[in-house]
Amino acid sequence: MNIKFVFIVLGLFFILPSKIIFAENDRPRARDIGLQIGTIQPGILNAITDVQGVKVGHYTANIGDDVRTGVTAIIPSDHNLYLNPIPAWIHVGNGYGKAVGETQVREFGEIETPIILTCTLCVWTAANALKNWQLSKPGEGQHTLNPIVGETNDSNVNNMWSENTIKMEYVYEALNTAKSGPVAEGSIGAGRGTQAFGWKGGIGTSSRVLPMSLGGYTVGVLVQTNFGGDLVMNGAPVGRELNQYSFKKQLEEARLEKLPSDGGSIMIVVATDAPILSRNLDRLAKRAMMGLARSGSVAHNSSGDYVIAFSTNKDVRRDRASREPVPSKTLTNVAMSPLFQATVEATQEAIYNALLKATTVSSSRGVLEAINIDKVKTILEKYNVTNFDQKLPPRKLKHN
Amino acid sequence: MNIKFVFIVLGLFFILPSKIIFAENDRPRARDIGLQIGTIQPGILNAITDVQGVKVGHYTANIGDDVRTGVTAIIPSDHNLYLNPIPAWIHVGNGYGKAVGETQVREFGEIETPIILTCTLCVWTAANALKNWQLSKPGEGQHTLNPIVGETNDSNVNNMWSENTIKMEYVYEALNTAKSGPVAEGSIGAGRGTQAFGWKGGIGTSSRVLPMSLGGYTVGVLVQTNFGGDLVMNGAPVGRELNQYSFKKQLEEARLEKLPSDGGSIMIVVATDAPILSRNLDRLAKRAMMGLARSGSVAHNSSGDYVIAFSTNKDVRRDRASREPVPSKTLTNVAMSPLFQATVEATQEAIYNALLKATTVSSSRGVLEAINIDKVKTILEKYNVTNFDQKLPPRKLKHN
Amino acid sequence: MNIKFVFIVLGLFFILPSKIIFAENDRPRARDIGLQIGTIQPGILNAITDVQGVKVGHYTANIGDDVRTGVTAIIPSDHNLYLNPIPAWIHVGNGYGKAVGETQVREFGEIETPIILTCTLCVWTAANALKNWQLSKPGEGQHTLNPIVGETNDSNVNNMWSENTIKMEYVYEALNTAKSGPVAEGSIGAGRGTQAFGWKGGIGTSSRVLPMSLGGYTVGVLVQTNFGGDLVMNGAPVGRELNQYSFKKQLEEARLEKLPSDGGSIMIVVATDAPILSRNLDRLAKRAMMGLARSGSVAHNSSGDYVIAFSTNKDVRRDRASREPVPSKTLTNVAMSPLFQATVEATQEAIYNALLKATTVSSSRGVLEAINIDKVKTILEKYNVTNFDQKLPPRKLKHN
Amino acid sequence: MNIKFVFIVLGLFFILPSKIIFAENDRPRARDIGLQIGTIQPGILNAITDVQGVKVGHYTANIGDDVRTGVTAIIPSDHNLYLNPIPAWIHVGNGYGKAVGETQVREFGEIETPIILTCTLCVWTAANALKNWQLSKPGEGQHTLNPIVGETNDSNVNNMWSENTIKMEYVYEALNTAKSGPVAEGSIGAGRGTQAFGWKGGIGTSSRVLPMSLGGYTVGVLVQTNFGGDLVMNGAPVGRELNQYSFKKQLEEARLEKLPSDGGSIMIVVATDAPILSRNLDRLAKRAMMGLARSGSVAHNSSGDYVIAFSTNKDVRRDRASREPVPSKTLTNVAMSPLFQATVEATQEAIYNALLKATTVSSSRGVLEAINIDKVKTILEKYNVTNFDQKLPPRKLKHN
Repeated sequence: MNIKFVFIVLGLFFILPSKIIFAENDRPRARDIGLQIGTIQPGILNAITDVQGVKVGHYTANIGDDVRTGVTAIIPSDHNLYLNPIPAWIHVGNGYGKAVGETQVREFGEIETPIILTCTLCVWTAANALKNWQLSKPGEGQHTLNPIVGETNDSNVNNMWSENTIKMEYVYEALNTAKSGPVAEGSIGAGRGTQAFGWKGGIGTSSRVLPMSLGGYTVGVLVQTNFGGDLVMNGAPVGRELNQYSFKKQLEEARLEKLPSDGGSIMIVVATDAPILSRNLDRLAKRAMMGLARSGSVAHNSSGDYVIAFSTNKDVRRDRASREPVPSKTLTNVAMSPLFQATVEATQEAIYNALLKATTVSSSRGVLEAINIDKVKTILEKYNVTNFDQKLPPRKLKHN
Repeated sequence: MNIKFVFIVLGLFFILPSKIIFAENDRPRARDIGLQIGTIQPGILNAITDVQGVKVGHYTANIGDDVRTGVTAIIPSDHNLYLNPIPAWIHVGNGYGKAVGETQVREFGEIETPIILTCTLCVWTAANALKNWQLSKPGEGQHTLNPIVGETNDSNVNNMWSENTIKMEYVYEALNTAKSGPVAEGSIGAGRGTQAFGWKGGIGTSSRVLPMSLGGYTVGVLVQTNFGGDLVMNGAPVGRELNQYSFKKQLEEARLEKLPSDGGSIMIVVATDAPILSRNLDRLAKRAMMGLARSGSVAHNSSGDYVIAFSTNKDVRRDRASREPVPSKTLTNVAMSPLFQATVEATQEAIYNALLKATTVSSSRGVLEAINIDKVKTILEKYNVTNFDQKLPPRKLKHN
Repeated sequence: MNIKFVFIVLGLFFILPSKIIFAENDRPRARDIGLQIGTIQPGILNAITDVQGVKVGHYTANIGDDVRTGVTAIIPSDHNLYLNPIPAWIHVGNGYGKAVGETQVREFGEIETPIILTCTLCVWTAANALKNWQLSKPGEGQHTLNPIVGETNDSNVNNMWSENTIKMEYVYEALNTAKSGPVAEGSIGAGRGTQAFGWKGGIGTSSRVLPMSLGGYTVGVLVQTNFGGDLVMNGAPVGRELNQYSFKKQLEEARLEKLPSDGGSIMIVVATDAPILSRNLDRLAKRAMMGLARSGSVAHNSSGDYVIAFSTNKDVRRDRASREPVPSKTLTNVAMSPLFQATVEATQEAIYNALLKATTVSSSRGVLEAINIDKVKTILEKYNVTNFDQKLPPRKLKHN
Repeated sequence: MNIKFVFIVLGLFFILPSKIIFAENDRPRARDIGLQIGTIQPGILNAITDVQGVKVGHYTANIGDDVRTGVTAIIPSDHNLYLNPIPAWIHVGNGYGKAVGETQVREFGEIETPIILTCTLCVWTAANALKNWQLSKPGEGQHTLNPIVGETNDSNVNNMWSENTIKMEYVYEALNTAKSGPVAEGSIGAGRGTQAFGWKGGIGTSSRVLPMSLGGYTVGVLVQTNFGGDLVMNGAPVGRELNQYSFKKQLEEARLEKLPSDGGSIMIVVATDAPILSRNLDRLAKRAMMGLARSGSVAHNSSGDYVIAFSTNKDVRRDRASREPVPSKTLTNVAMSPLFQATVEATQEAIYNALLKATTVSSSRGVLEAINIDKVKTILEKYNVTNFDQKLPPRKLKHN
């Protein structure tokens, strides 16, 4: 009651600080319950912010009885992205979505704005806001701009057709409060109203740091989950154990009148400090889809699955106006495989983090229940997939 | 006896019948050791030939001390494929390969020849042979032709630089002996010299049949494995248990002088009787990469990962010369998700079948050891991933 | 003065009827001055509306001293496009633009809304408006929607950074007033502030009707020109004759301090009643770039050149919710070449129509002068490129 | 008579030196009859070999009464292309062709062998030969290789189904005799049996050199023409004047029983010394299609139109085995437009050179007549499109 009242009051100011609500979220991340994904070590924060310079900001909109949505901003770097765009690529895993800005990224191989994630029908307002925000920065003039905005459909609990759903102020707030350091996960920001595998999903993040012998680069991933499938955690068939998986009824019974929606989407943002250009970022982005696959997705028809990848390395950053050849230093193709593996692993783990950290969200439109952590633990034990560092043949790690 | 003798004699002439050598292979397929992948039921043969009309033929070349290669032919249908091409697509998961015929498939959305798989430097000779074979059929005239040939690099045990490696006759033989029914798997045909995850790999196949409530269509997959990664079987970390996984040394130790090859490739052929055209076959093909991901691959830089998908459905077959609109019946996008899942599952299982059925192959160039079945079983038990039908919540299957 | 006053008054109502201003435009279209492009006959209107069912609406915003922009709406058909999407494709000739909606079109091969053209930084507001407009139609429910919005940069005369530049009402008005019949061309709608080859450009349209022996189909093209290059009209080097062409100074002189902007873009909408699906619409769309080339463009780096192609044929229209195979009738690849040629020709002619019909537009930001018709005529005579029907070997046309 | 006899005698040795036959070809190139295409100056040779280091070699096969084909080799540079691949891209304008090697170029963004052009069904033998040739070079070991081979269909006069059509020796000879300096054009090498717009076509080449103020880079183009359309020369409608254009009969008359083949293809090789990587080479390659459009093509359905673009600049060349970041210097996007224009112009002019230089070729299969130069001149005069330097407003050229 009290909390709901606080929501409404704060809602009038259109500024709902996420930290108040979410600071106390003590649900575990994947590693907290012993899930160790893959063989490469995560970074210190196990978050996209392990890639130096990357900042993340959330704005969560929890207004009235039917607005449960928000905005998550990813700022690749504090420098002026328009004057010095950074190498980037957008890979379309399954293009049932409204991602804004894709064609220019694929033509120029770079992004010139931060990245905003939000709800599906909110993307155009968010694009307007991102444009305003960036053009108001010092040194910006009158030029075009290619805002990058991704989305998933949170209409299970959010009325995205309401005019109140998204305000430009939310975008400004997410951008202005973006910071390095730990990243809040779960039912927050653009993940406020989204799901995953039928449970509450949201924002999740993870990272990998290659050993020095493989280059020492960091790959960080942040996801906004909203997809379906048969949840598998490090191999354990959690979705099937909990009787929640794709086409369950059809697989059991005879012809049904109506198919359930197979919907859902995922936005995946991949950041790296490896010095690579758009072509290899494209290849990196494609691998994020393989991490998605390992969590149990088959990229359903109605899923908008997009991967936005960029490099923060200064050796590949270019003055957009230069008419002279610009020096750069880039990795060759043969150095890419460890980065591919890092991307797969971090994507898979970011998805688990989103699912595990997400708390139940309800509205007049419905309820998305958080997955039961105890049940998950029991299943992970049954399939013996926790604490691999102890169970598998030892590795004498001399990390970096 | 007589027959065997004739074979041996012919073998000297570069005609070595595969059935004699491989008939007695009693290694298990995935389901024989309790691996049940996914939720959709396989077809009767659990093979690409469950898709009606599809035929597979092998020719295995095991010559002298350094030729360990072969040819596998997939014939989508017995009708004249040139006059009535069938809808098809080639998806390039990672394009480090010599796949022949890709551009025309992507322009016209169809294939007009059978598909040949063989060794890397053998593709051009194989393309010449496939062209000859098809143009010599009754009713063919003087026209161009777009042969489809895929490959993986079997040079661990095969001297693919030798002029003896591949003969056009091998291709003719594989095509002429192609048949419906069970498909021989393992170290046979184009899988004679290939690997998987560091063990002997080869040819594998699997299928899925959708329940009638999801359309009742069949998806069949055949793979030629040659890739690396961290083998995972239905979730169980087999590769790590057996101390064989990517970047093992780098992940344990300090900077090394030299990176090992991360190599390997996979050719994936996806057949379906669902009435879909090239655009949805493209989408289907992309999902095969998700099945690959689940087996433990991250699509290494040096891996040529290609998916060739086609539909055998007669309602989408067209007279190439027609200048009038041609009637067809096709599924809409919303009906695709179950086919996506079927493709993911069948691809994953086909890979396991290739690995499990493969027998050790050695030559003067080296040895590729078959994976130890007993060790695999022990690991699967440790991770409790066999016989899901008994361990997971029951499904009351009323299949079709 | 008076006119300016009228603008301001009307501007207050945000409804500036284009017919008042533009009805009297008596500048010629290409054919009026003897330019006969190609060999295929145009339709009766020589406009995109020759494709049955296609409607076009303009809203022109001429407000204050710095808003010179507008909206052009193309409605492919009056039926509910969401419930029965039509086959479509977006081809990105050069992706320096903000086209909205591209990824879903390329995934599903269809569009589910009308198409809006407007100014660059106006696209997101226009997308919001198009979404609202369509969702407010009878029978629409709460679902997502993929609005298609294209743009070119009219900032030579338009302050597209002003909050007043674009209002959602403009989009509604363009959509609500869209009609079949003749299409107003020139400095109208989304062409209000755009240029072409350095002169005033705008909206132009043209069509082609194949003879019955080639299928009898119609192809209609509408362009929003804003690009640069060396204008060539049916071969005559008009741009060079008038001393206006790319890199003029650099080609004459030594190193300059600063390169001029090579900017500009073009949006090309291609409609046809031929029964073809997205793959062949993609191929058709690519040919529009060849028509663009013939007018003198080389698709400069800073040009956003997009082609949106769709088919209005009812035999390829599908119920999006159907889970059963849907019957259709489609042309095979071999029937495409005449449609390709029709697209090339209509695109080239539509560009000339935009340029010739455009009237001078000025604002506090600058002036875009209309090309001088008399000078054009003189040049066309010099190069003898008018009235080909009389000068070239006779054709005994038995059109349809 | 004599000449024919010489052919037969030499044919027996399978080595037919092109210089003997073609040295005396005194047909004009485009500029010799006053055709000045575009605004940028050509290089000294007006050939692809103006790009430093590029070599071209031809082998012409004129054997018996039905073999009229050949091989043209383009060697980008004398260094070891496998160890230090060069940036490259293959753009598929219309993919009805058998181009070999495309997928790897698009994955790695580079080529590792010379480029071979030949006849359609000859590509696989040519690929085998190119592989052998390169692997036999000093320093090469046992590795895979991605030969690049393009083709057009010369079956109007060549029996490409004959086993005698192509020999591996032809490829070796073309590679071994490749040289810098002037490039023989017309009915030579891979252009021996090809057509253009219904007349004899073949090999043509042209180049452009940017003024220093635009970077001073060179773009060279070589084409193997075999396509159809309505020939336009610098705007003059030559095809229509000579009553040879697409769909002539259908456009004049009622429904016909049978459509003529609209066939034909073009291979376009674009070389530059500008320091650009694969993404910008892709963009460059796309512009070659715009040059093709200007000559009168609409890229017919049955045309295989491919563009292979590469950069010879040493600042973008990389050691393929390096695992450390490799320094390079590359142009930014904003510097690309002049290179785009150079590519369009050189492609258009190379096509005219192929057509004008080509001599009549006949065989038992048919005759391809060379276009009549006098008639062409008369038409060019009628349309006043020659010697633009004198007729158009003067440019004070201070070239470089």
